[in-house]
Amino acid sequence: MPELRRDPVTGEWVIIATERSRRPHDFRKDAESDSPKPERMDNCPFCVGNESLTPPEISAFREADSPPDTPGWWVRTVPNKYPALAPEGELEQRNLGIYEVMNAVGAHEVIIETPLHNQHPATMPLDQWYEAIWMYRERALTLQQDPRLKYVLLFRNHGKPAGASLEHPHSQLAALPLVPAAVQRKIEGMTRYHDQHGRCLYCDILAQEIAFGKRVVLQNEHFVAFAPFASHFPFEMCILPKHHAAHFAQEPPDVLRWFAATLQEALQRLYSLLGDPPYNYMIYTAPINLGYEPLFHWHLTLVPRLSIPAGFEMGTEIYINITAPEDAAEHLRTAPTAQLT
Amino acid sequence: MPELRRDPVTGEWVIIATERSRRPHDFRKDAESDSPKPERMDNCPFCVGNESLTPPEISAFREADSPPDTPGWWVRTVPNKYPALAPEGELEQRNLGIYEVMNAVGAHEVIIETPLHNQHPATMPLDQWYEAIWMYRERALTLQQDPRLKYVLLFRNHGKPAGASLEHPHSQLAALPLVPAAVQRKIEGMTRYHDQHGRCLYCDILAQEIAFGKRVVLQNEHFVAFAPFASHFPFEMCILPKHHAAHFAQEPPDVLRWFAATLQEALQRLYSLLGDPPYNYMIYTAPINLGYEPLFHWHLTLVPRLSIPAGFEMGTEIYINITAPEDAAEHLRTAPTAQLT
Repeated sequence: MPELRRDPVTGEWVIIATERSRRPHDFRKDAESDSPKPERMDNCPFCVGNESLTPPEISAFREADSPPDTPGWWVRTVPNKYPALAPEGELEQRNLGIYEVMNAVGAHEVIIETPLHNQHPATMPLDQWYEAIWMYRERALTLQQDPRLKYVLLFRNHGKPAGASLEHPHSQLAALPLVPAAVQRKIEGMTRYHDQHGRCLYCDILAQEIAFGKRVVLQNEHFVAFAPFASHFPFEMCILPKHHAAHFAQEPPDVLRWFAATLQEALQRLYSLLGDPPYNYMIYTAPINLGYEPLFHWHLTLVPRLSIPAGFEMGTEIYINITAPEDAAEHLRTAPTAQLT
Repeated sequence: MPELRRDPVTGEWVIIATERSRRPHDFRKDAESDSPKPERMDNCPFCVGNESLTPPEISAFREADSPPDTPGWWVRTVPNKYPALAPEGELEQRNLGIYEVMNAVGAHEVIIETPLHNQHPATMPLDQWYEAIWMYRERALTLQQDPRLKYVLLFRNHGKPAGASLEHPHSQLAALPLVPAAVQRKIEGMTRYHDQHGRCLYCDILAQEIAFGKRVVLQNEHFVAFAPFASHFPFEMCILPKHHAAHFAQEPPDVLRWFAATLQEALQRLYSLLGDPPYNYMIYTAPINLGYEPLFHWHLTLVPRLSIPAGFEMGTEIYINITAPEDAAEHLRTAPTAQLT
């Protein structure tokens, strides 16, 4: 019988209905093209030598003597060419009858994670991952100094069905003038739990998951990756620091290196199990400029896009997941992590 | 500059960012196959003569002397072959440590809207639409007699990218043992507004939209179809009764006939403007068995699937919409409604 499971943070229900379940093999998506990709593409705006095809760079890790917008970089941040949020201007909140509207002030940036067009995120070396993560941190720390901003979201779209329009490895950053509903709901859940129990909800989830074990995919000194009890999607993973920490960007270098290693390993396992599935990941962290949020416990959610939310999900906000998280975790736990090429 | 608009019901923000906007022509999706489809397919479980390929029927409008699960029907309701909710059993809410779980008791049905495989919903005759809508009503009224159930959702997935696995025209019904979050949030918004203003929020939206006019797609004696101010998706439409009514299924026959005509016309305009785009529609109506909800104002939301929600939307629950609702409405308002073949 299908099961309704409740997300302990947001209170959202999910239906785990495994009758239509498929084996991991049947979910496999192979790369969009089998032919090997080159290190550099003439028409790719994120490739070395094509720096003029993007708006002027915001930040880059590059050779000391190399000028901006030239080769010599290994991680490069540029404005999104079609930004959903604009860096200039005032918020100007106003009403139109019963409606509310304001200027979408903020930032919308692209973090090009490697100069190599054909560097697949699942096989990118740890050092390069660490550099990319370090850029995430640097941009988040810089943007949180803008008092108009309330939230910095770091996220990645991989593959066309996950919304990526360019295949060159990149992530995105969106800085918002408000706390988005997805984060607000998490804060409310964590606050409610803390008021009742005097403890952090994610710290308790962590303890229960490690004790239970069957949803754990991998763990190391600082992080655990697990399939959430109320996973919305097949093979969804949450990467959670084992220590209580509100802000991703305030983690010290050694913790961020462990984070890079955990994310890399999670992607490797996904890649060896499911081929090259489209996925999104999002880093949920505490809001900024609103006072420190001692309740928040930052984490990353990784969502392979193997099913299509449809009228049921839109009409209810209840997701139907055909793969039990316990099964997903078992498959991911036993999938090889060796570097694949 | 992109604009943040707030949904007055749910409080959710949407970003209208038209820099990447496209003309309706560039959104056009033609039918998956250009070759004309036959009236009947041997392997389609929803076609006449293939009644044994579905689970036994729950209800059908059929010729008086025709037995169940044989030809002779014009609208037919069957259980979903892979149900997300099961009709038998008790709720049995229980805890697993900090997690909550219960049996997914409810109903998950398929309403086959026409015997004709090749009857496209945008060109289906009004009489047939009315029969299908009458079946929606009949199933909703029957299921609301089950005291375990709290909500009946009627929805339609059209096209593979909108989650439809079979092309034969059909809708679905899901009956749930709880009020889903999507509806709960609407109730909270309507309650808040009613407490403040003593009026129905949707009645006020209706008045403002008709007075403003630029987001109205069509209207008739009983209904208005408009592009919501904070549309999540390009060419999204809301069909709203002009009279205040909580329950879709309690509408009298003449109102439901106007509803069928409004939905048919909205689909015709979408079809003539955008080809055969994938879409979902959902009917939002008051919960059942929880006391009458005098605040609720039922409506249908129609969402073409022309863009892919990705990491930004998942991380924030703020949707980026590249088509201003005012532009969408103008295009839809001027699109032909003549029956297309």
